[in-house]
Amino acid sequence: MLKFSERTKGAKRSAIRELLKYTEQPEVISFAGGLPDPATFPVDFLAKVAAEEILYNYLKSLQYTTTEGKRPLREALVRWLAEEGIKATMDEIVITNGSQQGLDLVGRVFLDPGDGVFVSLPTYLGALQAFRAYQPTLVGIPLEEDGMDLECLRRAIHEVRKRGHTPKLIYVIPDFQNPTGITWSEEKRQELLKIAEEEDLLIVEDIPYRWLRYRGEPIPTIASLDESGRVLVLLTFSKILAAGLRVGALVAPQEVVNMVVTMKQGADLCGPSLTQRLVVRFLTDYDIHNHIARLCQHYKTKLEAMLRALEEHMPEEAEWTKPDGGLFVWVKLPEPADTTKMLERALTRRVAYVPGQPFFADGSGLNTMRLSFALASREEIEEGIRRLGIVVKEELAALSLAQRG
Amino acid sequence: MLKFSERTKGAKRSAIRELLKYTEQPEVISFAGGLPDPATFPVDFLAKVAAEEILYNYLKSLQYTTTEGKRPLREALVRWLAEEGIKATMDEIVITNGSQQGLDLVGRVFLDPGDGVFVSLPTYLGALQAFRAYQPTLVGIPLEEDGMDLECLRRAIHEVRKRGHTPKLIYVIPDFQNPTGITWSEEKRQELLKIAEEEDLLIVEDIPYRWLRYRGEPIPTIASLDESGRVLVLLTFSKILAAGLRVGALVAPQEVVNMVVTMKQGADLCGPSLTQRLVVRFLTDYDIHNHIARLCQHYKTKLEAMLRALEEHMPEEAEWTKPDGGLFVWVKLPEPADTTKMLERALTRRVAYVPGQPFFADGSGLNTMRLSFALASREEIEEGIRRLGIVVKEELAALSLAQRG
Repeated sequence: MLKFSERTKGAKRSAIRELLKYTEQPEVISFAGGLPDPATFPVDFLAKVAAEEILYNYLKSLQYTTTEGKRPLREALVRWLAEEGIKATMDEIVITNGSQQGLDLVGRVFLDPGDGVFVSLPTYLGALQAFRAYQPTLVGIPLEEDGMDLECLRRAIHEVRKRGHTPKLIYVIPDFQNPTGITWSEEKRQELLKIAEEEDLLIVEDIPYRWLRYRGEPIPTIASLDESGRVLVLLTFSKILAAGLRVGALVAPQEVVNMVVTMKQGADLCGPSLTQRLVVRFLTDYDIHNHIARLCQHYKTKLEAMLRALEEHMPEEAEWTKPDGGLFVWVKLPEPADTTKMLERALTRRVAYVPGQPFFADGSGLNTMRLSFALASREEIEEGIRRLGIVVKEELAALSLAQRG
Repeated sequence: MLKFSERTKGAKRSAIRELLKYTEQPEVISFAGGLPDPATFPVDFLAKVAAEEILYNYLKSLQYTTTEGKRPLREALVRWLAEEGIKATMDEIVITNGSQQGLDLVGRVFLDPGDGVFVSLPTYLGALQAFRAYQPTLVGIPLEEDGMDLECLRRAIHEVRKRGHTPKLIYVIPDFQNPTGITWSEEKRQELLKIAEEEDLLIVEDIPYRWLRYRGEPIPTIASLDESGRVLVLLTFSKILAAGLRVGALVAPQEVVNMVVTMKQGADLCGPSLTQRLVVRFLTDYDIHNHIARLCQHYKTKLEAMLRALEEHMPEEAEWTKPDGGLFVWVKLPEPADTTKMLERALTRRVAYVPGQPFFADGSGLNTMRLSFALASREEIEEGIRRLGIVVKEELAALSLAQRG
């Protein structure tokens, strides 16, 4: 009786979100979630301004707002983006429900079935889900230590065109990528822009973790290097303010924003006024730079604890990234290790992670896993990685037995 | 350079939302918006519980939540729906960003290009926008005083099938419809169910205004009469709590909810926790029934003021609905009056309304307009309708001159 649409056919639930259900037993030390640490949320400030906004500003905080989002929020974002070298006017910004809705709106506005979308291997799972709803040709490009393999990207673009499809978008998270923690070099950012111009593609630059840098100097955003108006920026306050507000933004040339707003009217009419007002107050009445400095110090000690523990407890066959920021470390085991199967063993040892495979558009990456250091304490990180080390060693021993047998 | 997707081709911005910009001059008495009266928002209660939720419950109010929405909210909704005779379990409910997102998700999960969607003439503009993004065959069915012309609906379903398309959905707002204020009779609700069963279609029953009844007895929801699991219910707290929270819900059989949740992960991951927690507190800690009784009394006097003023000031050639609830009165002028053109004249006379044409899937309805009585005071309603009466009389006089000339 139920006739679902064609686009539902390839839809898969996020393996991560399903997994989280099993990793929430209190004895399990979980590196699985992608959630920020609630200890970083400015609770007192938010409670105070929420009450103020509702009591004294309810015409603005409790009534419908515009589809593009509150004007003072877009004005504050103009200044906020300028700090990252991104020149945007208020009319080039749409407020979204997290950056996830930005991804969906980009798909909605640009993608016809078959259109070419290029992502790194691995990439953010939610981007794969968002784009897949529009039935594109999703092409995975290997990710190196300093960004995508751009030679491979060029060939893939030509290949897609040869097969009669239109290459449309390249999706990247250039700072402390989810899931690997990798940051693109400035050279590759420049080169990516050149490719996008030569091949007439758009770049979607997703920067949720940009403000979470724990060492080294910031590298210019791709949007700040762009002079041709082909970079769309997605940002969110989920990681630097509070995830439960779901306030993000899409920044794009005005012609794109106009179309996004038109399509967003049908998608959800407008976002909640209250949460937008809270972010306005955060950007105008709070010492954000100090807040972010404290946040970075908080996560830095956790990242360092994790890297130390990995060094100590992982077998030498394992490899992992050493990110300069973000929330994630990425571990690679020798093939044919299968981290999905290994998860059962890990849960028995009361430690959890996310198997890496769902982050790969081509279904590879069976031997990889993502570890988040955001939620666990330093002690839990040390103990959890110790447990994980045992699990990995057992797994590798079992594999080597099986290969010999 | 910008290659927008095919689905953007038919997309139009909401004429209403664009119009609102021009109707906001302070001297204009506006019946244009569809906004609820902020005087009805329980401001003190919301300020108190917002501060409490953020201070003492921030793990629940400021962290990510699940895609389907907070469990206590879905539990409270089970009880809330039971009062309307709708039997649903917690797993048959998804929390949405207003009912608008529910419309989008229904389209996403069910509609392939060409699929038949049946709506009344006129219907809620946002539903047309939401469905159009999925490129369906949208068929408008005349709306009579007691609901759709169901003979016409049957013929239209057969016609769509004959043209090789799959009839999928019938969209209705059976209580105090937007834009007309019309309420379906129980007979027509029963008959609609019978047609949906015989023809194997789903019914989308949108009930944003159901709780705003100012006279007469409630008529059972279509979902409460259904025994075959083919009615999807959309509801929202925008009209009975506060529009700026954007908390709504989609209620459907579990198989549908599962697919909706899968697709919603890609669309926006999850909604804001804070606004969901505020609605939980509203449903569990507030005297909702008393609140709604006061709300209804508030709007009832406004509706009565508008009906009285229309009686006094409109020329006899004009017709209008006499709704038992909701926020709107619908006015029809003799053809060939054109309310879009007339709006300029109305703004000169400092009164605004929404031209009816955008509410018609077939582009008809040039001679109609929607009046909202929610925001204006009783005095403004009297004065605004007096001004509108002059505008209409001038328009009809000009038409009659033109016809003679």
